[in-house]
Amino acid sequence: MQICSYTLENGTASYGVSTDAGIHDAGDVFRAKYATLRDVLAAGALNELNAAAQANPALDAATVTMLPPITQPDKIICIGLNYMSHIKETGRDKPKYPSIFIRFPDSVLGHEADLIRPKVSEKFDFEGELAVVIGKPARHVAAADALDYVAGYSCFNDGSIRDFQRHTSQFWAGKSFQDSGSMGPCIVTPDEVGKLEDLNMETRLNGAQVQSTSIGDLAFNVGEIIEYLSTVITLLPGDVIATGTPSGVGLFREPQLWMKPGDTIEVEITGLGTLRNTIKDEV
Amino acid sequence: MQICSYTLENGTASYGVSTDAGIHDAGDVFRAKYATLRDVLAAGALNELNAAAQANPALDAATVTMLPPITQPDKIICIGLNYMSHIKETGRDKPKYPSIFIRFPDSVLGHEADLIRPKVSEKFDFEGELAVVIGKPARHVAAADALDYVAGYSCFNDGSIRDFQRHTSQFWAGKSFQDSGSMGPCIVTPDEVGKLEDLNMETRLNGAQVQSTSIGDLAFNVGEIIEYLSTVITLLPGDVIATGTPSGVGLFREPQLWMKPGDTIEVEITGLGTLRNTIKDEV
Repeated sequence: MQICSYTLENGTASYGVSTDAGIHDAGDVFRAKYATLRDVLAAGALNELNAAAQANPALDAATVTMLPPITQPDKIICIGLNYMSHIKETGRDKPKYPSIFIRFPDSVLGHEADLIRPKVSEKFDFEGELAVVIGKPARHVAAADALDYVAGYSCFNDGSIRDFQRHTSQFWAGKSFQDSGSMGPCIVTPDEVGKLEDLNMETRLNGAQVQSTSIGDLAFNVGEIIEYLSTVITLLPGDVIATGTPSGVGLFREPQLWMKPGDTIEVEITGLGTLRNTIKDEV
Repeated sequence: MQICSYTLENGTASYGVSTDAGIHDAGDVFRAKYATLRDVLAAGALNELNAAAQANPALDAATVTMLPPITQPDKIICIGLNYMSHIKETGRDKPKYPSIFIRFPDSVLGHEADLIRPKVSEKFDFEGELAVVIGKPARHVAAADALDYVAGYSCFNDGSIRDFQRHTSQFWAGKSFQDSGSMGPCIVTPDEVGKLEDLNMETRLNGAQVQSTSIGDLAFNVGEIIEYLSTVITLLPGDVIATGTPSGVGLFREPQLWMKPGDTIEVEITGLGTLRNTIKDEV
């Protein structure tokens, strides 16, 4: 199943199921019961959503404005330095523990939205990533059991303001700029995804490939990440984990490569579709 | 005005105004309009709350269970290395930018709650801090104007799991353990606080002073912190900024000093009262 959130033509925020025919909206009655996709996940009501949505005719996808699939997650947790290729690119060795920083939900937009390059910096970089969405509360979960707690997967662009990221040892300031990242277009449930290590991810800037990796190159896999995180906190339904980016980011290129107004940036992962955004300057 | 959140004897989560007579509860009717203190701040309705609450008789503070004053803030933002005494203690120079990391709300409890030492570590450290609560949306706010955006101040204990904090360069894993920190007892509005640089803060472990500082020793003051943060994000009503801890933390003592089950930890700031918690082991 592919589930997504969006604004309808009449301005109402909604969600539904995406199929080849288009988007089957959950509808007003269903939404009165579960206000958001996050509520659907928390209630374990994905099959109920599917039944309700499939009873509605498909909308033309062009009539909706996509939002991040989870519009207001409780948490977005990002893993730094998690592809062996990117670890080598930054001159580091494989770490013993995952490196974790936080993005606030207000920093993340949906598919086709304009990402905002802030006034204070021109060092606006892309980071294509696999996003994991949690499906049920997870605390002290072993890696071997962790995938049972996953509701689905999506594409993520962990847009980064590199000079702010390097102001101090802590990445946050470069990683949470308002409207600087994106997620989508949909969440795809695990039954449609297959083995994660068989997936490929590609990032394209104005159509040219800038990152390409197998998800199998992850230093810490999804199960290991969930085990570590759930030692510290309780992961909740709708929480998002951005699992890190591979080599090829603009910061480590010669010459460096930054996103600028008018650019198009895409993140595509096997079976998860393509997350596409354009860049605009802050006004 | 001193405002606080708590659970009433009947189990209902509520909030009200604290005076010498006790706690004046907002009451059911007022709470039907504004579900939480965060909603009161967002509506700019503090005076309305005061009028409604003062009309109710004072509750005996012993009959309520204190919660963090803002029970579900959108964000808790922490500043690392922000007292000159603590910066020197860690062997560093004064930084050019504030060092920022994030705590999730689920990691923070109220006054008199049991802080939880996790099973995975015995390195549970205290960090007494001044907390700032935002009163209205703040983006691109200059330091000179920033205090206009502050709803009030409180005491904060940024309880830290030191080995996890040092697993990688990113502090998060040691800074967001479930139920490891606290805030309270109340938020005190700026008119009752006076000049921040004249305040003193003291942390006591089992009654013995372990930290003592003037708030005037802050490397980045509250205005400068809000200016920097609001360059990156929009601060919202109810957002909490924990402004950093002075010297004296257990990590840098000889021998090191950790909080253990049965201990009492207190953070007291001039005019803001004393935040007191006991330590319990995770079960």
